[in-house]
Amino acid sequence: MDAPLAGLRIVEVSAFIAAPIGGMTLAQLGAEVIRIDPLGGNIDYNRWPLAPDGQSLYWTSLNKGKRSVALALDRPEGQALVRDLICAPGAEAGILLTNLPASRGWMSYAALAEHRPDLIMLRLTGNPDGSAAVDYTVNCASGFPVATGADTRPVNHVLPAWDVAAGLYLGLGLLSAERVRARTGKGQEVTLALSDVMAATVANLGYVADVQVNGAVRPPMGNELYGAFGRDFATADGRSVMLAAISNRQWRAIGKATGLADKLAAIGPLMGVDIETEGGRFQATRAIAALLEPWFAARSLEQVAAAFANSGVLWGPYQDFGQLVREDLRCSPANPIFGEIEQPGIGSLLAPRVPLSFALSAAPPPAPAPRLGQHTGAVLRDILGLDAGAVSELGKQGILRP
Amino acid sequence: MDAPLAGLRIVEVSAFIAAPIGGMTLAQLGAEVIRIDPLGGNIDYNRWPLAPDGQSLYWTSLNKGKRSVALALDRPEGQALVRDLICAPGAEAGILLTNLPASRGWMSYAALAEHRPDLIMLRLTGNPDGSAAVDYTVNCASGFPVATGADTRPVNHVLPAWDVAAGLYLGLGLLSAERVRARTGKGQEVTLALSDVMAATVANLGYVADVQVNGAVRPPMGNELYGAFGRDFATADGRSVMLAAISNRQWRAIGKATGLADKLAAIGPLMGVDIETEGGRFQATRAIAALLEPWFAARSLEQVAAAFANSGVLWGPYQDFGQLVREDLRCSPANPIFGEIEQPGIGSLLAPRVPLSFALSAAPPPAPAPRLGQHTGAVLRDILGLDAGAVSELGKQGILRP
Repeated sequence: MDAPLAGLRIVEVSAFIAAPIGGMTLAQLGAEVIRIDPLGGNIDYNRWPLAPDGQSLYWTSLNKGKRSVALALDRPEGQALVRDLICAPGAEAGILLTNLPASRGWMSYAALAEHRPDLIMLRLTGNPDGSAAVDYTVNCASGFPVATGADTRPVNHVLPAWDVAAGLYLGLGLLSAERVRARTGKGQEVTLALSDVMAATVANLGYVADVQVNGAVRPPMGNELYGAFGRDFATADGRSVMLAAISNRQWRAIGKATGLADKLAAIGPLMGVDIETEGGRFQATRAIAALLEPWFAARSLEQVAAAFANSGVLWGPYQDFGQLVREDLRCSPANPIFGEIEQPGIGSLLAPRVPLSFALSAAPPPAPAPRLGQHTGAVLRDILGLDAGAVSELGKQGILRP
Repeated sequence: MDAPLAGLRIVEVSAFIAAPIGGMTLAQLGAEVIRIDPLGGNIDYNRWPLAPDGQSLYWTSLNKGKRSVALALDRPEGQALVRDLICAPGAEAGILLTNLPASRGWMSYAALAEHRPDLIMLRLTGNPDGSAAVDYTVNCASGFPVATGADTRPVNHVLPAWDVAAGLYLGLGLLSAERVRARTGKGQEVTLALSDVMAATVANLGYVADVQVNGAVRPPMGNELYGAFGRDFATADGRSVMLAAISNRQWRAIGKATGLADKLAAIGPLMGVDIETEGGRFQATRAIAALLEPWFAARSLEQVAAAFANSGVLWGPYQDFGQLVREDLRCSPANPIFGEIEQPGIGSLLAPRVPLSFALSAAPPPAPAPRLGQHTGAVLRDILGLDAGAVSELGKQGILRP
């Protein structure tokens, strides 16, 4: 069978993380995604980390499997080509994904829809009023940095979680709008503000209700779980592991695997909580941890792993990025979602396809990112029907680089 | 116009965060989402935080806008009803979303597909091998906790970012599979492992390539950005703000708004970097911060906000969850994605709809969560055609609660 989104064509005019992740995810599901950049690349083209040849590993990682078109976007001829690519005919084409400020001007929905009335346009902004915001300046407002770490000094998480979520929301909005168009013939603009992804998520996770109903502001609790038992523990060989028990079965597994079941059970009456409930275990977190600390401190990570193997204990080792890549089979070619790609100028790299596994549809295998402008000529030929002479003439005019 | 996903019917048998977020997001896009739980609720039904009446604010926040069916899932009669609801006819029905271990048994794809060969089933697992993993035990392996905070002692982020991303991936997988079925008539099982969401995302963000190409493991850098200038600053009144400059325009805006442009420009030659590039500013982060610290320390948050208003400076205040709810208009009824809902037994609450804004399609307004089992009788009548007598008889047999 074809890929899940085979036949769908999306033009992406973007930079940074969120919109590129949206486009890349749709490409990984089988859509043809054409990323259009200015000559020389957009503002994210040289972002760190860099490979020895100067290429951005950030850019190549976020744009895998796309076709790349580079044009002089500051010139009317370049803008006309972009517009023609976005508005080219085809029942499954006519879709633009962007995070550029495009509420006005030649790339606005109104201007483009004159050329394709059923256009679908996904537009990401920072704040709902269109003002700029990025993951960092949205995250600080979310409440999470103040609740992260061991004290109230804010700790930013390093994962750009709001960008990742926004990219996936963009994909959902695009497929939803395309579903509507397939049924009604009507295209539309769909907008998403990064700060709305944050605020909606904080509310969806119950933090807003906790403030409104209980007047409660979740305090920082280090690496302890809220509402259930869980915490990090140090091992004898200087490693750390995360241990948690959500269900009663997971809780009993800890007692059995460590041989501390009787002592752990005694914590209930000792602390005056029902240790057979999530909430009771949460209230007794410190006492439980005090019992378990010496057990971990007396064992190496390997010994812990041996004791917990097939035990039903919910745990995992902390790893740095190097350990993840070198030691964790889940991030290796042994995992079917990963494969080795040949990234031009960089070499062989481990790269994922979409993490979803379809029983029938063939999701595309891991693919490298394009070279900037690699597909400019081919796309102008394939979609706009320009012949070699016309493409060559555009090169001479400086609209594209031959 | 109708809601984007009007007509789509999804049965969700789930617990915790990821699968419920997937289902809730699809409900917020207009799908009919029926969450089925055991009598008395699933394992997440009483999770903290709780409202004064004992209801879980976690559960109500994650299940807004769904219909709730509660049945004796441990009895063959209850299982048969669930199967009939999942496999009920309808071109846009026959879709199951679950995170329960259902690779075997009555709720497996093979067993259900005997009753509806074109079934679509989305199944979330912990690890690719089907073993258990949750956000905490996936996160510790990701590399991010070791890179978070000021030193290498791991710091868990509090946002369950992997669960949020997995929920949105489930939505994408479901819409992709439904698109395939609408075109080919073929349903299929789609699986997603939470750990694959993590590993794929780490790779998509360039961390895997940085290890493989440069042998580099991103060290913890507190609240400093990597690859560009950015950091938190303390104000005179004990607040903190996040400040960043990605583009040269944002960088120049800082100089202009603080009056420190000349001194900031002098850092380039002083530190031997090109201060007009992202990478140069990243290398000079400490020197830039040293210049800016006294500026912030001499001003209240209000004064900082006044100086940065309409300046093009990329910044934001840190807020705790209480400040977000009480002081930030982006998390208030002034924001069109939010509204006041009446949550039964709890009262009036601020709640979001989907953060996507559709120009034509009408996304459903914010909606409360159901009471557990609130729609059991209605759903059995609407979808299976059971009459009042049959529903009453099921109540007498203990298959549902009347």
